[in-house]
Amino acid sequence: MSNVVRILGIDPGLRNMGWGVIDTEGSRLSFVACGSIHPAQDAPLSERLRQLHVQLAAIIEAHRPDEAAVEETFVNRDPQGTLKLGQARGIALVVPALAGLTVAEYSANLVKKTVTGTGHAEKQQIGMMLKVLLPRSNATSPDAADALAVAVTHAQHRASAALAARLGLKTA
Amino acid sequence: MSNVVRILGIDPGLRNMGWGVIDTEGSRLSFVACGSIHPAQDAPLSERLRQLHVQLAAIIEAHRPDEAAVEETFVNRDPQGTLKLGQARGIALVVPALAGLTVAEYSANLVKKTVTGTGHAEKQQIGMMLKVLLPRSNATSPDAADALAVAVTHAQHRASAALAARLGLKTA
Repeated sequence: MSNVVRILGIDPGLRNMGWGVIDTEGSRLSFVACGSIHPAQDAPLSERLRQLHVQLAAIIEAHRPDEAAVEETFVNRDPQGTLKLGQARGIALVVPALAGLTVAEYSANLVKKTVTGTGHAEKQQIGMMLKVLLPRSNATSPDAADALAVAVTHAQHRASAALAARLGLKTA
Repeated sequence: MSNVVRILGIDPGLRNMGWGVIDTEGSRLSFVACGSIHPAQDAPLSERLRQLHVQLAAIIEAHRPDEAAVEETFVNRDPQGTLKLGQARGIALVVPALAGLTVAEYSANLVKKTVTGTGHAEKQQIGMMLKVLLPRSNATSPDAADALAVAVTHAQHRASAALAARLGLKTA
């Protein structure tokens, strides 16, 4: 019986929606696929959201993840920027839920801390750590790399939570 | 040949998503249906968004509107509130788009001005004007009334735009 769990990580954005799929078995991680969705920038908002929806659904259909994780959005931006990000994030959360997946959320700081050991890591450090954690990763965009980092974060936190449960510990 | 156009108006919100369907033929308006969707408040965010998505899709399936209109969100709120509204708004925009409808957007001020003649109308004034414009309306919640007001706004603006087009005028 296989204990492999396949995780889809998503870095939400209206212009660039990063996605990354990894397999995890105990503490082992392996890269499956990643990429970035770019809706037509001159299309109306509803059409851009529709393109994100359809393409994300196709990625789930192709890779059949067991669980999903989405990066929590940084909200100290201008209200219009926050609203746009919120709209894209609504799609990132709802598409896996429509496919029956549980959807975990992790703050950007926790993702950085889990992957690099510090909450204030630069994009470059995340990229370097991903090369170590997922040597076969071919992430060519920062969004795809961020999405893989979210997936790695979920893999490590779900393993810790499972271990704590086996030991009868309560987790926060 | 019928020139009736059926319009779905949506007032987006994560706790309460108002919807209203009207028919318009030239300058005539008639009420079809309205209501409000309330996702389970204690469910995870992805599940609440999923419930909004599924119920909005069912409303479109049941009433088969030709076009949709969504209220533009007021963003001078706290960033967390704006983000939540953005997520719900993403669902309000994408579900009609997935069903092949065009989705127009109108600011809350324009909706108030179109329905009541002033951009600073109270909820109560909107409700009173809706009783006049759509006598058969049975809106029992402010969200449903707002959604009907968005639908009425779209009906009036699409009629003006069509008239301007026939007269060879340019519209903003």
